[in-house]
Amino acid sequence: MLQDSEKQWSETEKQIAQQALQTAHQRETSALIANIRDRASSLTELEDLWYLHDLLSTKRHEIDGKYEYNQSTIVFDFARLVKEGWLRLEDIQGLKPETLSKISVLARM
Amino acid sequence: MLQDSEKQWSETEKQIAQQALQTAHQRETSALIANIRDRASSLTELEDLWYLHDLLSTKRHEIDGKYEYNQSTIVFDFARLVKEGWLRLEDIQGLKPETLSKISVLARM
Repeated sequence: MLQDSEKQWSETEKQIAQQALQTAHQRETSALIANIRDRASSLTELEDLWYLHDLLSTKRHEIDGKYEYNQSTIVFDFARLVKEGWLRLEDIQGLKPETLSKISVLARM
Repeated sequence: MLQDSEKQWSETEKQIAQQALQTAHQRETSALIANIRDRASSLTELEDLWYLHDLLSTKRHEIDGKYEYNQSTIVFDFARLVKEGWLRLEDIQGLKPETLSKISVLARM
């Protein structure tokens, strides 16, 4: 069923998807930068510094994998991003209504 | 030659050395915390965030190893810390004059 929909993605849809990924990436990384800046501004203990390091290690690993465009998982990737708040359904307007509703349903699971 | 001097370290000298290691550790980590706080305060780019992460990874690894008390390498460890500016010769007053001068010579190499 997913394979059927994949075949039907037009070039325009793929471009919309690519652009939306970039937008979400921008949102998540901007929020991360602001978060790290805030946390760092009140750093006084070594323990907190290493906590910051652990947080960065986790986030870097997570972000590196999450924004690769992969046609076979893009619906699930988008659903995850919507759920996490980095992607909005309006960012992917132009995709087929059934794709949008699938993403929307998955995002609420 | 080093082994001879090792045998001659009294308990008092070992305590002085332990204390000095802690002092140097405190200096280096405080400077690191201040450095990270400063760098983070002007963070705007993702590239700079990952640079900060790399820096923390390196420093954490370095600091973890550097402050282990090891009697067989303590003279060299102290020389390195003096060279780097984290330890001062006055912190290790109470060690034998020949130990102090060895550290001092090594620190200038």
